[in-house]
This record gives sequence, structure tokens and C-alpha cells, in this order.
Amino acid sequence: MAQNVERSITVNSLFAPVEREILLVEENIRATSDVDQAGLSELLDYIVDSGGKRIRPALTLICGKLHRYNLDLLVPMAAGVELLHTATLVHDDTVDNSTKRRGKPTAANMWGGGTAILAGDYLFSQAAELVARTGNLRVIRLFARTLMTLCKGELDQIFSSFNNGQSRQGYFKRIGNKTSSLFSTATESAGILSEAPEKATQALRSYGHNLGMAFQIVDDILDFTADEDKLGKPVASDLAQGILTLPTILLNERYPHDSPISGVFGGGDKERSLELAIDMINNSGIIPECCGIAQGFASEACQAIEAFPDNSCRQALFRIADHVVDRET
Amino acid sequence: MAQNVERSITVNSLFAPVEREILLVEENIRATSDVDQAGLSELLDYIVDSGGKRIRPALTLICGKLHRYNLDLLVPMAAGVELLHTATLVHDDTVDNSTKRRGKPTAANMWGGGTAILAGDYLFSQAAELVARTGNLRVIRLFARTLMTLCKGELDQIFSSFNNGQSRQGYFKRIGNKTSSLFSTATESAGILSEAPEKATQALRSYGHNLGMAFQIVDDILDFTADEDKLGKPVASDLAQGILTLPTILLNERYPHDSPISGVFGGGDKERSLELAIDMINNSGIIPECCGIAQGFASEACQAIEAFPDNSCRQALFRIADHVVDRET
Repeated sequence: MAQNVERSITVNSLFAPVEREILLVEENIRATSDVDQAGLSELLDYIVDSGGKRIRPALTLICGKLHRYNLDLLVPMAAGVELLHTATLVHDDTVDNSTKRRGKPTAANMWGGGTAILAGDYLFSQAAELVARTGNLRVIRLFARTLMTLCKGELDQIFSSFNNGQSRQGYFKRIGNKTSSLFSTATESAGILSEAPEKATQALRSYGHNLGMAFQIVDDILDFTADEDKLGKPVASDLAQGILTLPTILLNERYPHDSPISGVFGGGDKERSLELAIDMINNSGIIPECCGIAQGFASEACQAIEAFPDNSCRQALFRIADHVVDRET
Repeated sequence: MAQNVERSITVNSLFAPVEREILLVEENIRATSDVDQAGLSELLDYIVDSGGKRIRPALTLICGKLHRYNLDLLVPMAAGVELLHTATLVHDDTVDNSTKRRGKPTAANMWGGGTAILAGDYLFSQAAELVARTGNLRVIRLFARTLMTLCKGELDQIFSSFNNGQSRQGYFKRIGNKTSSLFSTATESAGILSEAPEKATQALRSYGHNLGMAFQIVDDILDFTADEDKLGKPVASDLAQGILTLPTILLNERYPHDSPISGVFGGGDKERSLELAIDMINNSGIIPECCGIAQGFASEACQAIEAFPDNSCRQALFRIADHVVDRET
């Protein structure tokens, strides 16, 4: 509990320039569960109350404040982005048969996979409805394409699972689709809705894309370095499911002939190979190398917005980039 | 095969006023599988090629032809409606663990539930993208709300399963959500996009809603009266899964104290109770009563468009209403 409070204070101070506005987004998100079916209402409440950090909607608000700040457009957009994220998490947990997320049982675990699928669909429709409220056709199309890209990334992950021949480039493309695309939509849409010049909108898009890349790489690092309590799920859960991420790809690069990953995917003692892989990743230069790559993307994110005036919003975007790389959960 | 050809001729002649234009819709639907991932492309091809009757997109085209016929708007709308329908079928089959649809193995059966969930999501995004191409905010919002309504209907079905106390009214509300809402969106959007007067748009909406009600009731009748070969799935599959539909609700109404449905849901010999229920439904006045109710909705559908000029499109809409009630698959 103390840890949660602490985290929430850190996160709040990160989002300082939009501290009050983020509450309006929260209201929009919570309104999702105002439905006339008690069972559905309870289910949606459970899902939207599962303690996300709300980093994506905060990005939309902060980026929107750099130009013509119109909350009537930015608040529904930000809420739509967060609900799309939430919907994909509900489906991902169902796809992966995950029992826990952020330390809480998943919706699929509590209500069954079928109900979770439909609840995710309901959240997609809510997200689309919120974005449609902006009345802006460009962001509406961007949003639809984003869902397409997210699905392509997730499907690519499934189709390439247990394939031990994956490269960094393939990994970057995949996380670009499955994670960065929503970050870049969160920031690009803010540029569009705040009537930023096209060059500035593209700079915001680039900030979001690179931040998303750093975010996912750090997620993939934490999957190996954090303990189960902090993660809210088992260590190395991706690898156990046949998914290669940056640390495991670097391990394969270093030990092309005797990497333990082939043992995790192939025959023999999988448990032992998994333990060996976790150990080798944690006790070699692999983690610092991954952190360096994440840092590189975070720096590119900051570089993209360097030409913006030095104000509290640009500072917040810099601090968020630092936080994404330094975070422990 | 001969049966399929025959059906396809019947269906084609039903859609005569838009026979050529429906091919444009088909092209848009098939373009969905043009993706740069071989695995995903194969999966999407399999799904969109599963032989739907394309009744919903045909309705959009025919209704659109009653006013200002603009194919640049109506074709993407019609394709979006059909892809939304396809996406919901893929998810429904995953929710229900169905192994077959229209006699073919379901995507979930062939590729696994996780992949089917993501493929359905991908189709949702494609549907949303197609509808966004109309550039019409009213239909974009209508479309997002429709997905919401469809999900509410499906979730209501799950939350009320194995509840033997359901009424006709609850059933009508549920099928209104899970089926009619997409029919009414197919026809209402045509009115909007063809710049029909508001009264005419509402008449088209009413036609679609009532047609959808008749369509679902006939589906629920066929679940008891058709054989497994024609259905492409087991007889009384809804009842076996705890879902009450009109025939079973009428059976409960007739035999409030000794309906075999409680035996299907409760303890004892479920198989025997199921057989008894199928037998009682088929050999009583229940099926004709259900047909009469379906006919009533179809008549209301026709009544809604009676004020339109008597032309080939109105005639086609009348014939479709007849076909929906008379069809055997």
C-alpha cells in the first residue's frame, strides 16, 4: 500500500502541468461503467479501476498544452487512448492466459475468457466513441489505424513465438507496432487537435514513438530483473511463453552456439534452461546494454522536441522520458 | 455443392438492384487480407472467405439507392458493416468454443482462441477505418455505438445463461441489441449517406431493426427445426449452452411447472431433457407461433417503408423481408 501511494505521488508530480485535467480524463474513463446492466457495470468497474499509471492520456494533455489547448477535444481523446490501451490489455491477458496483472487477478481469470473478450470489445467501442466526439476525421482515422497496428504487433508476436532465429530489427518492428504506435498516437493526436503546425505535430509523433520504444524495452528488461511482487506476474513470463525480447535476443547474439534459449524452446529440461537463461542475462553485460538501447530511444524522444519553447510542458516531457528509463515497475 | 449454387442464385436475385455494386463491396472486404505478414494474410483470407450471405451490405446499397446514390460513401460503409459482422462472429465463436460455422472449422478451432481474438480485433479496426472513409461523423458515431450495443447484447446473453426465468421481453431486448442493431445501422447509415430526409432515414432504420428481429427469431427457430448438415452446427446448440431463445421461452410459458428446460439446466439426465425439449418444441404449436412472431416483425419492416415510391429497390426490400422469414438456412 505504502509503495502504491509513493508511486502515485511520483507519477502525479510527473504530470504536474495537467494535474487537474487528468482528473477530467479519469471521470470520462469511469463513466464507461455507467451502464444499465449490473453485471456489466461491475465488470467494467473492475477493469478500469485496475490502477494503470495513465501515462498515455497524460501525454496527450501535456502535448496538447504546447499549442492551442482545447480540453473539449483533448479530454475525450486522452480518455479514448487510455481505454484503447485498457481494452488491449484485457484481450492480451486473455490471449496469454495470464492470471494476474498489476498484482490483481485478470478479468479473464475472474469472469472467464469469453466475458473478457466481450468486455474488451465493449471498451474498444467506448474508445472509438470518445475519439469520435472530437469531430476530427484525421484523428478518427489515425485511431482506427492504430488499433490495426497494435493487432499486427500482437499477432506477429504469436506467429513468431518459439522461433529462436529472431533479430533485433524484427523485435524493434514488433514493439514499434504493439507498443509505440499507441504512444505516438497519444502525442500526434494532441498536435492535430491543438492545431499545431505540421512540423510540430510530426515532432510530437516522433517523441511518442521513441518514448514508446524505450518504455517497451524497459518493460522487457524488468521482466528479467524485477521480482515477482513488483512485477505482479512471474519473472521471465515472456520467455516461458516462447516470446523473444531484447535481453534474450542479445543473449542469443552473444552465445550463437550455446545459448540456453534453444533449451527453453526445444526438448530437455526446460525449467533448468529457463533458470540458466535468467541467470546469464542478469549476470552479464546484457542488462546494461539493453538499458543503453532504451536510453538511446529516450534521448531521441527528447531530441525530437528540443525545438519547442522551454516551458513546464516541455520539461514534463523530458522528465517523463527520464522516468520511463529509470522506473522500477 | 448444388445446394450452394442454388442458394447463391436465390441470394443474388434478391440483391438484383445492386448486383454489380455488391462486387465492389466484396473487393473492399477482400482487400482486408492484403497485409505484409504471410500468417496474418492467410488467417484473414480464411475468415473473410467463409461464405457469408452479405445481406447487411446489400441492405446498405439498396437503401442508399432510394435517395442520392453515392457509391464512394456507400461501398466503404457497406464493407465496414460486413466486416464488423464478421469480427463479431469470430469473437462469438471464440466465446462459445464453437468448432464449426457454416460447416467450416472456425478460426478459433484452426488457429487457437488467442489468435482468433486478435484477428477479430484487427477486423474491427478495418471496419472502423472503412467507415471513417465516409468522412461522415454521424455514421462514424453510429457505428461506434453499434459495436457497444452488440457487445451489450452478447454480454447479456452470457450473464443470463442458465437462468430459466427469462421473459419474451428480455429476449426481444437482447436480440434487439445483439442482432437488430447492426441491421438498423446498415439501413440507417444508408439513409444518412444518401442524404435522405430525416423521416425517411428513420423509416429505413425501422425497416432494418424489424428485419433484424425477424432474422434472429428465424435463426433461433432453425436451431431447433433444421438438421445439423444444413445448420453447419449441432441442433439446439444454444439451449445446450444455457441460452434461452424464443422457442424455449414459449415452451416454458406453456408448461410453467413441467417444462423439460429446467432438466437441461439443472441436475439429472441432461441429454434426455434436451431431447425431450427438442421433441416438444417440434411437435407442438410452438414453432408456428414463433414463425408468426417473426412474420409480424417482417410485416412491420415492410410497413415502415410503405411510403417510399414503388421501385425496384423497395420491391427488393420487400422480397428480402419475405426471404428472411422463409429461408431454410
